[in-house]
Amino acid sequence: MISVEQAKNIILNSTQDFGVEEIPFIKSVGRILKEDIVADRDFPPFNRVSMDGIAINYTYFKNGQRGFKVEGIQAAGSEQLSMQYADNCIEVMTGAVLPNNCDTVIRYEDVVLENGIAIITVNDIKDKQNIHVKGKDKSKNDVLIAKNKLISAAEIGVFATVGKSVVKVAKQPKVLIVSTGDELVGVDEIPLEHQIRRSNVFTLVSLLERLDIPSETTHITDDKPVLKSKIETYLQEYDVLLFSGAVSKGKYDFLPEVFDELGVKKLFHKVTQRPGKPFFYGKTNNCNVFGFPGNPISTFVNCLAYFYPWYYKSIGLKTKEETAILNADVTFKSNLTYFLQVQLETKLGHLVATPIKGNGSGDLASLVNTDAFIQLPNDKTEFKKGEVFPIIAYRSF
Amino acid sequence: MISVEQAKNIILNSTQDFGVEEIPFIKSVGRILKEDIVADRDFPPFNRVSMDGIAINYTYFKNGQRGFKVEGIQAAGSEQLSMQYADNCIEVMTGAVLPNNCDTVIRYEDVVLENGIAIITVNDIKDKQNIHVKGKDKSKNDVLIAKNKLISAAEIGVFATVGKSVVKVAKQPKVLIVSTGDELVGVDEIPLEHQIRRSNVFTLVSLLERLDIPSETTHITDDKPVLKSKIETYLQEYDVLLFSGAVSKGKYDFLPEVFDELGVKKLFHKVTQRPGKPFFYGKTNNCNVFGFPGNPISTFVNCLAYFYPWYYKSIGLKTKEETAILNADVTFKSNLTYFLQVQLETKLGHLVATPIKGNGSGDLASLVNTDAFIQLPNDKTEFKKGEVFPIIAYRSF
Repeated sequence: MISVEQAKNIILNSTQDFGVEEIPFIKSVGRILKEDIVADRDFPPFNRVSMDGIAINYTYFKNGQRGFKVEGIQAAGSEQLSMQYADNCIEVMTGAVLPNNCDTVIRYEDVVLENGIAIITVNDIKDKQNIHVKGKDKSKNDVLIAKNKLISAAEIGVFATVGKSVVKVAKQPKVLIVSTGDELVGVDEIPLEHQIRRSNVFTLVSLLERLDIPSETTHITDDKPVLKSKIETYLQEYDVLLFSGAVSKGKYDFLPEVFDELGVKKLFHKVTQRPGKPFFYGKTNNCNVFGFPGNPISTFVNCLAYFYPWYYKSIGLKTKEETAILNADVTFKSNLTYFLQVQLETKLGHLVATPIKGNGSGDLASLVNTDAFIQLPNDKTEFKKGEVFPIIAYRSF
Repeated sequence: MISVEQAKNIILNSTQDFGVEEIPFIKSVGRILKEDIVADRDFPPFNRVSMDGIAINYTYFKNGQRGFKVEGIQAAGSEQLSMQYADNCIEVMTGAVLPNNCDTVIRYEDVVLENGIAIITVNDIKDKQNIHVKGKDKSKNDVLIAKNKLISAAEIGVFATVGKSVVKVAKQPKVLIVSTGDELVGVDEIPLEHQIRRSNVFTLVSLLERLDIPSETTHITDDKPVLKSKIETYLQEYDVLLFSGAVSKGKYDFLPEVFDELGVKKLFHKVTQRPGKPFFYGKTNNCNVFGFPGNPISTFVNCLAYFYPWYYKSIGLKTKEETAILNADVTFKSNLTYFLQVQLETKLGHLVATPIKGNGSGDLASLVNTDAFIQLPNDKTEFKKGEVFPIIAYRSF
């Protein structure tokens, strides 16, 4: 039996690179960028008008001139005009190129237009105001987005701006989720008294969907030869196998034996944690095998606490640890790391975690009322309100 | 010109119910549940063994017996056995029904099995231990998930458990995103000196995708008759129109006039905020019109600050306000509510917002380096490090 910290270390030293693929930029939210995105020209690409109004040569304003004859209109998307007479003005629109021979923009709110003359009605005009100067944000070839960034709506806008209609992203692993257990029936079936419906595989599908990882699911009965023959094939066909159940001490918990017989190298089996103690992790040359204990909360928290960080590191994403303030005293005497279910809330800039007592690792419905797990270490038994611990959030709050 | 608070009130008093639809449960993450999910039977549905080991009648243990003859094996998924002799035991597996005439489970770790006899090696055995009692989590017909919940992986597991293969969710509005502006060219085109590529529509598509709202996009040139005829059709065909650009004071900012001529009731135009002051909001009987100013950051923050809450309330989702601690002194004298870009981090349970100075509302690339906007009110000009303000986060951190 190893500690949570040891288990995490082993997992993080056992990541795998799944390579890179190119996809349409608009489909890339949630993926990890695998190239630097550089400016294809200066940004802004020209001296850009940033207010609707008139453009003038500031010298004339400074010298006391207030009425400026309107020479033309510079629309956004039109070629740059040149002002013919330096004491005239040109009407300019937000997003337009600043006309030649102009250097300052006065917004319409500060101007009266009459008979082709613009009269400036305020005195507080600054030289070069309301111009977004060429190259001010970025110069051509500047890196706008460094690789290994998690792509969000903000990055999508930048891709569009620089013409990256196709982007390189980390390829996703090919994942199969396997349930075992003869007590399980399908979602559409009516279970007999001693049966229950399959649910963990669907929870796992959804937890992977959050990472934009598509997955397949299957079920194998508790029959060792069948398990062995099917898993032998899956180990060849998938990058990752996630199992739910059959890793504990039961007579039909064949998975650890089957893994051993199929040459899956065991990296650990059993972690000093609650829930999810019988967690198994191993690998072949090509396949990563996560054997989650079959209780619903065990599967859920192990996926978040181990598979997620393994995946993040595999694809090159750096994540920050999140912490929260415990909102009640907790006593836990089992000498295990305790992943305790909590509700999260921000109160005046504090992230507050309120423990909610479930009925143990079988009580899936209790996850509905909580937002995260707070990770209480195994070297203490008393945890006080106000103390700070790491959290693993599973929903926005 | 109205305040941010007034604008939000108007928007929240102008929400729209888009009805309910039924979809496969596995596709429902990110949607809003529109029915109560009730337990179809007790949970657990039977007295459920929660450890692999042996089941006994506790009375015999209490009376000093330590060796128990193994009468059989109760597997998970098998019909309930009945123990024939009350001083025997039955091997039981996690998830199995507790056999008749048994009341206590001892885990394998605390038992030695020899020649068909299980010898209990510990003295600390509690009556009825390691049994997850029928109905302990929930009783038949209990509400497991109340309607109006945002569906996450946790809810998916509950749907599966109770056999809800199809669930009722809030229907999504039908949304069209419209860009205007003759300076815009396509993502795959090489812009001329005075042109830029379209980007805001794609940013908006991605921001809506975060809400699981599919959307369509289109572009209209800055030509009033064309705008009017196209928008007239769109007002009939869509629940929501999101515009980017053409709502300010420019000569070609035709949208407010066009809206007026087409019978769109203006609820406000211009909000005392930066960025995004010229924001327009109006509606017809069937269509909700958001006219975002065309600068990239303006469009981005207005979508988050107004469209998101409008959508959440429309579909019945209650959200909590998030707040963070400002991590630097800020001076802002414009008498406008300031949506300031920040990086977010949790430090010892505190949500810390560090301002990052961009180059104004045209600097889309600056969003790449920030995680949220902190909302600084317009009744002050000095904001101190350590003060707490609302935030609008646009990425996980």
